[in-house]
Amino acid sequence: MPHFTNSRETLVTEAIDGLLRGAGGRLARLDGYPHIKVVVRTDWDKSKVALVSGGGSGHEPAHAGFVGQGMLTAAVCGDVFASPSVDAVLAAILSVTGEAGCLLIVKNYTGDRLNFGLAAERARTFGLNVSMVIVDDDIALPDLPQARGLAGALFVHKIAGAVAEAGQDLESVTAVAKRVIDGAVSIGMSLDTCTIPGSPRETRIPPGYAELGLGVHGEPGIEQVEFRGARRAVEMMIGKLVPHIKSGPHALLLNNLGGASQLEMAILAEDIAHSEIASQIKWIVGPAAMMTSLSMQGFSISLLPLAKDIEHALLAPAAPAAWSGTNPFGSVEIYPLPNGLAHILPIPSENTERRALIERCCNILIGAEQQLNLLDSKSGDGDTGTTLATAARALKSALDRLPLADMTQLYRAIGMELSQTMGGSSGVLLAIFFAAAGDASASGSDWVDGLSAGLDRIRQVGGANPGDRTMIDALVPALANLRNGLDAAAKAARQGANHTATIGQAKAGRATYVAEEKILGHNDPGAEAVAILFEKLSASRQNG
Amino acid sequence: MPHFTNSRETLVTEAIDGLLRGAGGRLARLDGYPHIKVVVRTDWDKSKVALVSGGGSGHEPAHAGFVGQGMLTAAVCGDVFASPSVDAVLAAILSVTGEAGCLLIVKNYTGDRLNFGLAAERARTFGLNVSMVIVDDDIALPDLPQARGLAGALFVHKIAGAVAEAGQDLESVTAVAKRVIDGAVSIGMSLDTCTIPGSPRETRIPPGYAELGLGVHGEPGIEQVEFRGARRAVEMMIGKLVPHIKSGPHALLLNNLGGASQLEMAILAEDIAHSEIASQIKWIVGPAAMMTSLSMQGFSISLLPLAKDIEHALLAPAAPAAWSGTNPFGSVEIYPLPNGLAHILPIPSENTERRALIERCCNILIGAEQQLNLLDSKSGDGDTGTTLATAARALKSALDRLPLADMTQLYRAIGMELSQTMGGSSGVLLAIFFAAAGDASASGSDWVDGLSAGLDRIRQVGGANPGDRTMIDALVPALANLRNGLDAAAKAARQGANHTATIGQAKAGRATYVAEEKILGHNDPGAEAVAILFEKLSASRQNG
Repeated sequence: MPHFTNSRETLVTEAIDGLLRGAGGRLARLDGYPHIKVVVRTDWDKSKVALVSGGGSGHEPAHAGFVGQGMLTAAVCGDVFASPSVDAVLAAILSVTGEAGCLLIVKNYTGDRLNFGLAAERARTFGLNVSMVIVDDDIALPDLPQARGLAGALFVHKIAGAVAEAGQDLESVTAVAKRVIDGAVSIGMSLDTCTIPGSPRETRIPPGYAELGLGVHGEPGIEQVEFRGARRAVEMMIGKLVPHIKSGPHALLLNNLGGASQLEMAILAEDIAHSEIASQIKWIVGPAAMMTSLSMQGFSISLLPLAKDIEHALLAPAAPAAWSGTNPFGSVEIYPLPNGLAHILPIPSENTERRALIERCCNILIGAEQQLNLLDSKSGDGDTGTTLATAARALKSALDRLPLADMTQLYRAIGMELSQTMGGSSGVLLAIFFAAAGDASASGSDWVDGLSAGLDRIRQVGGANPGDRTMIDALVPALANLRNGLDAAAKAARQGANHTATIGQAKAGRATYVAEEKILGHNDPGAEAVAILFEKLSASRQNG
Repeated sequence: MPHFTNSRETLVTEAIDGLLRGAGGRLARLDGYPHIKVVVRTDWDKSKVALVSGGGSGHEPAHAGFVGQGMLTAAVCGDVFASPSVDAVLAAILSVTGEAGCLLIVKNYTGDRLNFGLAAERARTFGLNVSMVIVDDDIALPDLPQARGLAGALFVHKIAGAVAEAGQDLESVTAVAKRVIDGAVSIGMSLDTCTIPGSPRETRIPPGYAELGLGVHGEPGIEQVEFRGARRAVEMMIGKLVPHIKSGPHALLLNNLGGASQLEMAILAEDIAHSEIASQIKWIVGPAAMMTSLSMQGFSISLLPLAKDIEHALLAPAAPAAWSGTNPFGSVEIYPLPNGLAHILPIPSENTERRALIERCCNILIGAEQQLNLLDSKSGDGDTGTTLATAARALKSALDRLPLADMTQLYRAIGMELSQTMGGSSGVLLAIFFAAAGDASASGSDWVDGLSAGLDRIRQVGGANPGDRTMIDALVPALANLRNGLDAAAKAARQGANHTATIGQAKAGRATYVAEEKILGHNDPGAEAVAILFEKLSASRQNG
């Protein structure tokens, strides 16, 4: 399975440099590539307690993305899903730790515990004040004595970060971090495993199943469960979390493991709002990709009970762009629909001349149905004639309710009728045509200028120009000549329609994708319809 | 392919409600479900030009995620990849448009053009001042007269949004939107197609290929190109963009189409920094998922030339959390490594008694190699004996360079030697053990208390307790009895080691995953090593 990467060796170093380039100068890295991959704040003065976290890469934006004011001071990045070395962690500690000391925030994986642990020992031999906390928020495996660290670590980064930023000492920062760890619980679910760049794709989860209680390194979860939709999945996960939480307000952190779409994540937020703990959730962080497992199609739910000081620290400002902020988990505000959506029926009125003209137009189009269908079958799906004839029949039957006496209202009413009776693009285009004509008529244009205004608008909206092999090719010359009489308009329309047969490449509409040899020699059916309409109108006028 | 969704009918409405719940009260929706899905600002007063955009869903966070101060006033959401209806767009316009008028920002897809276009006509019949711009930033198909709208639309939202927020009139807002559209160019690439929830997975792209010039609805791209890594892909795409841009500074928008990992996106940013246009990129927006195609594993690059006013508007603050901000596209700042990483070799010194003791310990472990390997083969990979013997041999050969006369330095030096010669967890654990012992010794502890401090530390770092079936089970009783003499320590260690044979479920270390029946009746090899060490030391002391 391919990825947007260059080489396995440079995966992480390139990604870190890419991050730094867009970090607005707020982040730097230590000069230790490839072995030492440490991202640090550039606005750090060592007077406060430093917060160092990290672990294997592949969890972006964790951890480097959370370095910044109010959160981490430094992040130590290992290779993908591999703990960073003792030297790398030590480099980070030495680089950012001053008199106030340093707190290491470590997720409960053996490699991280050991490497961060030894680095802490080494740092202490330099006289530095270093403490370490282990995040073990995963409640998926109740019997596993070593619960894994999941996205609950973000709560620790944020809250300890705010407390450190506020200038509290190492003991206090460590104490609050431990309280957050004691309170935070998480569980994850995935519909697919993640694939490490350069490794073959693993398909462990059978169709119709989800993996519950997964880790963030693609390791197997506790169990594979039947997947019966998002809401039931959320209910199951909340059911696992509930025995671990007490009453009282909580913060929710809804984490995308990387490959769930934002549509899915928003649905999951809504599902949580319908779960048994909804009323206990006061704040939400996310949904966002914060602690990912590359692009795993999964998510995790983390909950944190809110003591006053912890809530305050959670809400404190934080600079890292990857921190999506803490928002109230609220209700959905619904505004009433505006007035004007219900179609106001025009008051019918009579104008026998216009009634006759419309009727004649409709009859012409009804009569041309088969001919136009045949033509459309050369370049489309052969329904242009039927589409127009159906609309014409509907318009004829609507004549009695049209405001025939008022040109402005009439144009608009025709547009409304057509948009309701014709399907697809052509209905909307004709509706726009007549609505714009009505608009122009309301502004004082005569009927010819009204039609021209309609033409201008559908050219703008539809984006078709003369020469694109559409009805525009007949409509433009027809309207341009309409002031010289119907006959002139009809001749111009015919010329325009016939010209379309020489256009091998349609540039708008469905025929765009039809091969040249299939359409050459045939008129565009839309243009042909316009030509027929004007020709027959002209003929009936001359005869009548 | 399953998704975290509930039903195809409620995909979008649930997602919108999920978004609103976490939007901090800044967003509301109109009361028109399921047909009218419109998200509006709650802090809107109609005195400024309203900005309305939208289109099919499946592009989250676009468009609802960009509603907020400084960007959109309302977003009209269709079903997945389907244009919203005329009524829905009209509802949005009517809901937010006041005297100052409304700009519709529409991406160049026929359905959107038509539905937004007709809604604009209808809104005008209410006397509202509505203008519309069509975003067509895709340069992938130079011959397609109707270029598609891609993530370049975000530039329009942001810049027109800032100008509208600043109180400019509709004409000015429309004019700046048109200039942004004229300047913005985009191209996309994907390694995989996206799958619409409820639809079967489509696999159109053969292995080793990427699709260049894709749309954001899973429609086919212009061409399938050989994929030879991220950097070459970026070079190819930049090569397509270059003919469309002029000299001078540009803003880059690096958009995740949804399913690329953040690791990949950061690498792509770095690749762009090495491309031929790097020096022309002054600002970067992202990398972030802004205009997605569900969870398509792809990305797009958008470029915008920077006139003064456009740059100013791009940098203006904007409330929507989905807007990742505009950062300088800069160089990578590199800090020097801190002092202290180079291991300072201790000054060797002599203490014959300690030399003899260490030598004896080493010999005991070397002698027990086979025995311990045999035991380890019951619960592990049979190398405990060899691991310890190898370390013991290395330590013996290092005796001449050890600071034997200084207990503090000696502990630390042993820790350093072991961490360098022993692989894996055990090396780090023993290094931590001796580093902590040295630390305690430096604080005035005697040698027994020093060892106890080491034990405490590895229990904390490793997380193992007595009863977990590890070397702790022998080490804890041994050290607890050491003040009563080596014999007492040895007896306690033996008792502890033998007890491990009755522990069927290991709770730390590798044996955690070995079945109970395989390990019952056998001592844990680590605990056995401790017991053997103390027993033989005691025996040699008594003999000596």
